[in-house]
Amino acid sequence: MKIKIINPNTTLEMTESISAAGRSVARQGTEIVAVSPSFGPASIESYYDEFLCAPGVIEEVRLGDREGYDAYIVACYGDPGLHAAREVTLRPVIGIAEASLYTASILAARFSIVTVIPRIKTMLEEMVENYGFGRKVVNVRTTPLYVLDVEKDPEGALETLREEARRAVAEDDAEAILLGCAGFAEFADELEGELGIPVLDGVVCAVKLAEAVVELSKTTSKSKTYRFPERKTFAGAFARFGAETAHAEAAE
Amino acid sequence: MKIKIINPNTTLEMTESISAAGRSVARQGTEIVAVSPSFGPASIESYYDEFLCAPGVIEEVRLGDREGYDAYIVACYGDPGLHAAREVTLRPVIGIAEASLYTASILAARFSIVTVIPRIKTMLEEMVENYGFGRKVVNVRTTPLYVLDVEKDPEGALETLREEARRAVAEDDAEAILLGCAGFAEFADELEGELGIPVLDGVVCAVKLAEAVVELSKTTSKSKTYRFPERKTFAGAFARFGAETAHAEAAE
Amino acid sequence: MKIKIINPNTTLEMTESISAAGRSVARQGTEIVAVSPSFGPASIESYYDEFLCAPGVIEEVRLGDREGYDAYIVACYGDPGLHAAREVTLRPVIGIAEASLYTASILAARFSIVTVIPRIKTMLEEMVENYGFGRKVVNVRTTPLYVLDVEKDPEGALETLREEARRAVAEDDAEAILLGCAGFAEFADELEGELGIPVLDGVVCAVKLAEAVVELSKTTSKSKTYRFPERKTFAGAFARFGAETAHAEAAE
Amino acid sequence: MKIKIINPNTTLEMTESISAAGRSVARQGTEIVAVSPSFGPASIESYYDEFLCAPGVIEEVRLGDREGYDAYIVACYGDPGLHAAREVTLRPVIGIAEASLYTASILAARFSIVTVIPRIKTMLEEMVENYGFGRKVVNVRTTPLYVLDVEKDPEGALETLREEARRAVAEDDAEAILLGCAGFAEFADELEGELGIPVLDGVVCAVKLAEAVVELSKTTSKSKTYRFPERKTFAGAFARFGAETAHAEAAE
Amino acid sequence: MKIKIINPNTTLEMTESISAAGRSVARQGTEIVAVSPSFGPASIESYYDEFLCAPGVIEEVRLGDREGYDAYIVACYGDPGLHAAREVTLRPVIGIAEASLYTASILAARFSIVTVIPRIKTMLEEMVENYGFGRKVVNVRTTPLYVLDVEKDPEGALETLREEARRAVAEDDAEAILLGCAGFAEFADELEGELGIPVLDGVVCAVKLAEAVVELSKTTSKSKTYRFPERKTFAGAFARFGAETAHAEAAE
Amino acid sequence: MKIKIINPNTTLEMTESISAAGRSVARQGTEIVAVSPSFGPASIESYYDEFLCAPGVIEEVRLGDREGYDAYIVACYGDPGLHAAREVTLRPVIGIAEASLYTASILAARFSIVTVIPRIKTMLEEMVENYGFGRKVVNVRTTPLYVLDVEKDPEGALETLREEARRAVAEDDAEAILLGCAGFAEFADELEGELGIPVLDGVVCAVKLAEAVVELSKTTSKSKTYRFPERKTFAGAFARFGAETAHAEAAE
Repeated sequence: MKIKIINPNTTLEMTESISAAGRSVARQGTEIVAVSPSFGPASIESYYDEFLCAPGVIEEVRLGDREGYDAYIVACYGDPGLHAAREVTLRPVIGIAEASLYTASILAARFSIVTVIPRIKTMLEEMVENYGFGRKVVNVRTTPLYVLDVEKDPEGALETLREEARRAVAEDDAEAILLGCAGFAEFADELEGELGIPVLDGVVCAVKLAEAVVELSKTTSKSKTYRFPERKTFAGAFARFGAETAHAEAAE
Repeated sequence: MKIKIINPNTTLEMTESISAAGRSVARQGTEIVAVSPSFGPASIESYYDEFLCAPGVIEEVRLGDREGYDAYIVACYGDPGLHAAREVTLRPVIGIAEASLYTASILAARFSIVTVIPRIKTMLEEMVENYGFGRKVVNVRTTPLYVLDVEKDPEGALETLREEARRAVAEDDAEAILLGCAGFAEFADELEGELGIPVLDGVVCAVKLAEAVVELSKTTSKSKTYRFPERKTFAGAFARFGAETAHAEAAE
Repeated sequence: MKIKIINPNTTLEMTESISAAGRSVARQGTEIVAVSPSFGPASIESYYDEFLCAPGVIEEVRLGDREGYDAYIVACYGDPGLHAAREVTLRPVIGIAEASLYTASILAARFSIVTVIPRIKTMLEEMVENYGFGRKVVNVRTTPLYVLDVEKDPEGALETLREEARRAVAEDDAEAILLGCAGFAEFADELEGELGIPVLDGVVCAVKLAEAVVELSKTTSKSKTYRFPERKTFAGAFARFGAETAHAEAAE
Repeated sequence: MKIKIINPNTTLEMTESISAAGRSVARQGTEIVAVSPSFGPASIESYYDEFLCAPGVIEEVRLGDREGYDAYIVACYGDPGLHAAREVTLRPVIGIAEASLYTASILAARFSIVTVIPRIKTMLEEMVENYGFGRKVVNVRTTPLYVLDVEKDPEGALETLREEARRAVAEDDAEAILLGCAGFAEFADELEGELGIPVLDGVVCAVKLAEAVVELSKTTSKSKTYRFPERKTFAGAFARFGAETAHAEAAE
Repeated sequence: MKIKIINPNTTLEMTESISAAGRSVARQGTEIVAVSPSFGPASIESYYDEFLCAPGVIEEVRLGDREGYDAYIVACYGDPGLHAAREVTLRPVIGIAEASLYTASILAARFSIVTVIPRIKTMLEEMVENYGFGRKVVNVRTTPLYVLDVEKDPEGALETLREEARRAVAEDDAEAILLGCAGFAEFADELEGELGIPVLDGVVCAVKLAEAVVELSKTTSKSKTYRFPERKTFAGAFARFGAETAHAEAAE
Repeated sequence: MKIKIINPNTTLEMTESISAAGRSVARQGTEIVAVSPSFGPASIESYYDEFLCAPGVIEEVRLGDREGYDAYIVACYGDPGLHAAREVTLRPVIGIAEASLYTASILAARFSIVTVIPRIKTMLEEMVENYGFGRKVVNVRTTPLYVLDVEKDPEGALETLREEARRAVAEDDAEAILLGCAGFAEFADELEGELGIPVLDGVVCAVKLAEAVVELSKTTSKSKTYRFPERKTFAGAFARFGAETAHAEAAE
């Protein structure tokens, strides 16, 4: 089985650490390939970044189908472009945020998300609500951390996360912690050891869910919402997205 | 890895067919054992049946911990006793209804549940709402089928399901169908072939999620809601549940 | 009129104090009988306890129908087994939690529940949400009190409740307090006197609602959700629940 | 015990039939007095009517306190002015809509309201949602009936109600019917006999709840939302409402 | 274009300051006339005041139609009588609370309302929920201010508002502030300058929305909920409201 | 005042008809300029199209700020990229869907949206829910129409819309119709004339709201969610979006 993890940002160090997280839990026989799009933001910390990374995510899924992947993972904790990515392929596409929410629900009754800078709180709360987890997610806790701070100062980042996670336990009655950034993957085990409750990184959750769905031989429903995109012209720099659509329909 | 599937009803033919469904998707190395409690209803079609099967489910989880299982599955599409079962063990416990909802959410935007007799509609809708899937589940569709009709007249049962599933597609815009009874597992593939959209049986979904969570080495949060039960006396025929609690706490 | 109050736990001292609370508000002509099931937990402080007390509650309702009761009250503030109890009888069955919520809604716009140990917060919040009172109940406040602490140290329990109730008034803007444990009944009047707002014990609310519904000659709807349970076999120690079902249907 | 039922409209024939309904279920020792305000609409079938009847309702509660009533009932199925009425008295004030919703919840899992002309559907749905019963009320069904048609042609009105109630059972899976107009009280028993499920008139429900709350010696919370109105001047034709406020505060 | 702003209370100093606020943003060609009803409360700070001011609001709209107004604004931050006012005219009727909510939603993702005395919190929260803004409005913050304090001590009122608005920014993460009383209009600019985020007074928002809707030549839907009131008799002091209804229908 | 209407698709005939709609309601002194992005899909009928048009929308807003526009309108009935567009400018940005919802709420209690092909139903329902209008929008009705069918066969398109709008009135009790595609603007008046209820095109609603907000001198809150994007590098074909960010912050 080949799983393509798409890091929606273009910071390759982060892509590599995401890849490492994915490989750390993959079963023998599961090949993990992590990539970044060829264009887009170095990190995702706003609606602006989210909308500007989504075309690259979609492109990587389309390329992936030609390369024979069995499943895709969108590895940014806002699941950017997820619904669109599902339209362009039959293969399962999983967001790391949703993966962490489903996994957490099996392990704990209530949980908090600990994430990066304050401006994304609204974005994540809207996502959580759309997924139906508004009651299980007690709080979306932001920190002063920028996404790329993890690479620059891992120890400082861990300390900031640790403090906020402890506040989640003490003040939110959180029974599990969800790490709200793909870059936090490396800290999950250490924090879990310290806190004594599940600390979930979405990347590893998504890899295991991808394996599960592929082994069930399930494919994305093409009946209505996630049908292949309509055949149409794309103008200018995005002309190739029109051509690719035709390709997709031919594959049906 | 050893997974114990608990069929909350006491009809052993059904336990066997659930076991077969589970084994059909288990990985090499995953041992599936399916059991029924030693006491309780022959089928589950009401709140009455649900509350009277739950103690047996709990008991099987407690016994399972002594037998060294790695995960538990509650294989009735109302997930009876699920929260209580999580309290008595560190191992992950998964309900087939929740497993089908998480899996369906990866594959389709909206879906309908097709289940047994009309009286359980309220029970399932309340469950769906509690899980946060009230918007994704377009409809809970009941049929005239009793749970045990599947064993008695499989062809008739399949025909009834087929008709109701077709109505779900035509009238609800369902993009996937969730089979709302563990006994329907055997029909999933045939219906999926006919309908051309994902048709999900919760048993197989739960087995794959159980494997995933076990491979992530995650255990149930013992911080608050799912703490081990308090040590206390149980009267009369349930005296052993008090003793078992003590055992559980010792294991902590 | 004969009302049977079922204390779902098996601590008879508590059953007696519940009985006293019920009798204190019963009208002349209303006979109150309080019982505990013959099997089950000494107190109810978890999902585990809740699911293990429910069969005993159901059994007491079934026995009650043979004894000629006019109504039933489930006297634990999680209303355990309530929906199932309604299935087995034509007579009205009332939970003390719902009774307190309806009564409070007549007297105040917003209110808080003050209850026992923290682990049951999720359970009560889910119940409140299912009853539709998620907006009126501002907070579910837990305390360090175990259910049986009330019998052991009534003064200490009262002091703990007093403090938490005061916090509810100061921090939640609660306009009434709902006592979230049947064992707290004896403290309601004293706390109400001190706080100057309604303090509601569910037992007395339920007794008055039971009298009201009986005098309206209303019986439980047997049309769909609360139909009598289907006739079926029960295995092992619960075999008698199958027989009782047959009895129930005969009574229809 | 003296209960004042306020028919918010000024049609005295209807006030009399509401009074009869109330007396039919009152206990010995409960005195029922039904009145209409001295000013306002002949019937209530719009927001316009609702807002123009509310001052009269409020006035009747204020007068009632001088006359020594123990509880008040607002007998129009939109509960007009209910929150304001609670502000002006310590005595419990109950709306017939809320009374029917609480009573129905004890007897059935889901129910439909059958009411008058289509334009009030939005008004009733908003009320149901505000009370938290949006999930239990499956449908608010309107008919071509005007409120006063019941007096003019009782047989025709009954036939129209019967048909719509049957549709509620067949199409909504309603397990109980709530009569959405105080004027329908006289039809409840006949419809219940025919349909075989509870058919609830709010007037009788409210009388029994009023008796219950009075016997519990409970009064309206004066802590925040339902405090007595602030002392202030009222201009013009409503000057007396200012004076009355002063009176109310004096009583505190 | 002629816009009639109805200050639902009868304090003419306040009507004048509302008028000034309205005129300050009106376009050339927009005539603003602000009035108070001839009867009703001097300020609106409870359900009592709200229900007793609504008839006056309705009357002013009816009078306005004879005077040839193009739109109406209900200038109290609870939008009292709004739905009823829409029934009696074809012209658009806008509440200042809804106007502030729509405008704020264009400018900010989350916002808090800062308003008068604590007792109206429930009333405003219910209104916000009914308008669908329960998630965007993070908090309804009350102050010790009475409505008429603004006229008596403008500087003190401003200081109180400033403090509460700062708390909203610091504690609620409010990205805009909505002034929850028509009398606060004069403070909006100063507070906005200090806080650096949008501070919205509903009066000016409503004037601009009224101009917009009138220029679109849109009128109130008369199809169902907002149909003209039914023709009927009104008793006593409100007899004229019956006559007016007839007038309204004639105009259709 | 200069308002830039951004048609997110690249079909210039449609941009022109949107421009005409906008100009038809603009005040004297309001300059309307309508544009399409330089890259992206010819029409928007899926999540794929939505995510691939959003970068072009963002770019047009950024260009617009250099050109001195006072407000922006996103003229596709899914409001694609709206939140991101708000991040990059101080000027108000309005989506035509939200504009139609706010306007409709002033005119009618309940309404239906009539839109293009069935696959976008989920997308629009999610948007409506996020805006908080899930209760006011009774139904999202799709048709067999593709976006560009309007240009190809206007009469056929009108006939299809007419039929679906009539169904909305008859079956949904819709009191107003919202046209769920910018290309439908030209049909609004004719349909409104025929149906006798408000028929709202979002483009004209948005133009009037834009004028209103600009005249109020209000700008987008830069406090948290809609802060200017963080300064960062963008890779590949989107490198210019990084540079533009720097520009934006300089402007602060």
